[in-house]
Amino acid sequence: MIVGTEWLIEAEQCNAEKLRDEGVLRSVFARVIADLGLKVIGEKWHKFDGEGGVTGMAMLTESHLTCHTYPEHGAATFNLYCCRTRPEWDWESELRICLNASSVSITVVNRGSANLNFESEISNLRSQSAGGDI
Amino acid sequence: MIVGTEWLIEAEQCNAEKLRDEGVLRSVFARVIADLGLKVIGEKWHKFDGEGGVTGMAMLTESHLTCHTYPEHGAATFNLYCCRTRPEWDWESELRICLNASSVSITVVNRGSANLNFESEISNLRSQSAGGDI
Repeated sequence: MIVGTEWLIEAEQCNAEKLRDEGVLRSVFARVIADLGLKVIGEKWHKFDGEGGVTGMAMLTESHLTCHTYPEHGAATFNLYCCRTRPEWDWESELRICLNASSVSITVVNRGSANLNFESEISNLRSQSAGGDI
Repeated sequence: MIVGTEWLIEAEQCNAEKLRDEGVLRSVFARVIADLGLKVIGEKWHKFDGEGGVTGMAMLTESHLTCHTYPEHGAATFNLYCCRTRPEWDWESELRICLNASSVSITVVNRGSANLNFESEISNLRSQSAGGDI
């Protein structure tokens, strides 16, 4: 039984300063939430000390949205889990603009069943594969 | 660049009453956190009205732990994301005991790189596959 859809987003070669800026990450969350009409039950943010990154979590009536950033590696990862059908969000364009990401990959996973179904897409390359069926 | 490891857990054919019991889900979180030595920055829980399920989210210094339950389908899903190496947790045995799950599948995903690497395992069947390489 598929109970939800999760998007796993990997953004690479981002601007390190933006990955340390909680305000920038909050604005990404705000745009996702507004564009997809998501409803927030609660939201929590944490900026790690010094040169550290940012962690953000939003609990949604539709499930959850999270991010973790790694300025030392120029990387950010996001999870968006929705138990109701939502349109696709343009992670590639948004993260290129907001984080100066050079590469954004998106993997869609249907949750709830042992037969997880993965579908991945890397920006630019546009190569696709599906795997992980058991 | 791999920046973390995420475990996606699907528990099926669970006891519906346990999936509505926030205390049961909190105890699962407490055991994972204690056993793996995780550090909690913040935790939030929500019980949906009436026959609805439970959502839990813990922000960790190591990243995050989430759960969503679907009593109407006898299903629960968990995400455990760690940016530091952690031992495996015995999700199968624990969820059989705590939720009376008949089936537990675990998929491990390395996060941060476009070349996501999936490895799945279903309890009992013990079949394994790796796919999703792009």
